[in-house]
Amino acid sequence: MRNVCMIVSFDGTAYYGFQTQPGGNTIQDHIEEGLHDLTGEKLKVLGSGRTDAGVHARRQIFNFHTESLIPIERWCMALNGRLPDDIVVTHAFEVPLGFHARHSAKQKTYRYCINANQFPDLFQRHTQLHHPGKLHVLSMREALTSLVGTHDFTSFASRHSTKVNHVRTIYHAEIQLDTSMCRPGEPRDQGLITLYITGNGFLQHMVRIIVGTLLQVGEGKKKPSELQTILEAKDRAKAGPTAESKGLMLWDVLYDFTEEFPSPKEHSL
Amino acid sequence: MRNVCMIVSFDGTAYYGFQTQPGGNTIQDHIEEGLHDLTGEKLKVLGSGRTDAGVHARRQIFNFHTESLIPIERWCMALNGRLPDDIVVTHAFEVPLGFHARHSAKQKTYRYCINANQFPDLFQRHTQLHHPGKLHVLSMREALTSLVGTHDFTSFASRHSTKVNHVRTIYHAEIQLDTSMCRPGEPRDQGLITLYITGNGFLQHMVRIIVGTLLQVGEGKKKPSELQTILEAKDRAKAGPTAESKGLMLWDVLYDFTEEFPSPKEHSL
Repeated sequence: MRNVCMIVSFDGTAYYGFQTQPGGNTIQDHIEEGLHDLTGEKLKVLGSGRTDAGVHARRQIFNFHTESLIPIERWCMALNGRLPDDIVVTHAFEVPLGFHARHSAKQKTYRYCINANQFPDLFQRHTQLHHPGKLHVLSMREALTSLVGTHDFTSFASRHSTKVNHVRTIYHAEIQLDTSMCRPGEPRDQGLITLYITGNGFLQHMVRIIVGTLLQVGEGKKKPSELQTILEAKDRAKAGPTAESKGLMLWDVLYDFTEEFPSPKEHSL
Repeated sequence: MRNVCMIVSFDGTAYYGFQTQPGGNTIQDHIEEGLHDLTGEKLKVLGSGRTDAGVHARRQIFNFHTESLIPIERWCMALNGRLPDDIVVTHAFEVPLGFHARHSAKQKTYRYCINANQFPDLFQRHTQLHHPGKLHVLSMREALTSLVGTHDFTSFASRHSTKVNHVRTIYHAEIQLDTSMCRPGEPRDQGLITLYITGNGFLQHMVRIIVGTLLQVGEGKKKPSELQTILEAKDRAKAGPTAESKGLMLWDVLYDFTEEFPSPKEHSL
């Protein structure tokens, strides 16, 4: 028995999220079908977590236990040949039997992209929310600081969250503004506003509700100081709407590494 | 009567090229339908040139004559509301009546992207040719130098070219290698190889045949010095295959500007 861990990127546009759903058409379903075709085994894939329908991943991590003797360097090529072209596995490692992609994960980073130019960037239209109209980025940054640290994030979780404990820790959050794609001399173009947020875990819809609330701050509909009040209310109704899934991407998942489970790169998988 | 010039970007994946075809489903068809809906006029759009099915454009230029009195700053927003989300107009200018997007064009630049990493970049899968396996970039650059200047490009034109004269001038051509997307320490990843090529005009399939031939040079199947021989042969059979259209993008079209027809930016439209 071996425990194989892989990194997968996917364009989530066409899928109902990572994790298997009764309706089918998930990333996990495609990976499990590909692995079944490859190994003949009915394998159960464990992801580092769910992603919502339409959300993308640069680096999602999963693992599975297998009796297959396929050499580790062959797994990616063999599995990619059995996956649609919007799902690509890029790394495979053999890990200790006890490794569990979800339980062993220490940190996750998500990215959310908002295109605040007058017109969308059509080559990025599936991975950016288009928001024509200026946003006050400094206010959004100020609001964001209230969320860093350990808090009960009930106000920023879906009412359908199945978790008992809504306390999570945000280690780092920042908003970048990139004006390189603005048309020269065009005052209606503001640039690309990108949020990176890293925490020990995220509740259902949490990043999207944070973004929906930050958009209201950027539009002047909420003050940056209200984020503190919203957190304390522990009431989903106090926060902003859930931002569209297409702007969201699971950027990275971090694990603690040991000599037994060495990292291929700077302690990130 | 006014002459309106616009810049359009499009993802060509779903279309049979820019110019109207008997089978329909072209960029021009969608623009003309949008303009008809907007103005009530049956307008004829003049593009700076054709593009093949599946080829993209960052900046394609077209113009049309209209009786409409819509203010120039309203055209983009109004037309975008009538276009599918993979076609976006980004600039509109009123130009002298004699301006003709094709006849007035002085230079065109095309870009061709080859992803030479082991696995494709799935978020760029519609705009990059995936070529796993190393390419000898220095040889490709050496080969490319033979094409710069004024030559008869019959060997690099489709056999179906309707042009009588196949002499064209390439002003500039370069190949860039970007390794930023390579996986650290992964010897099978080479990076992104991008060709930019600027000339006074391009024959049907010309850039794609140049790329197909350069790929053979990069693979060691042809020597860089053979490009000279291929040019002199004036025989399509001597050049390489026509590279896939999805890696190609019309990057820019340049015009001579006068005081009458001022440039919004550095003498490029």
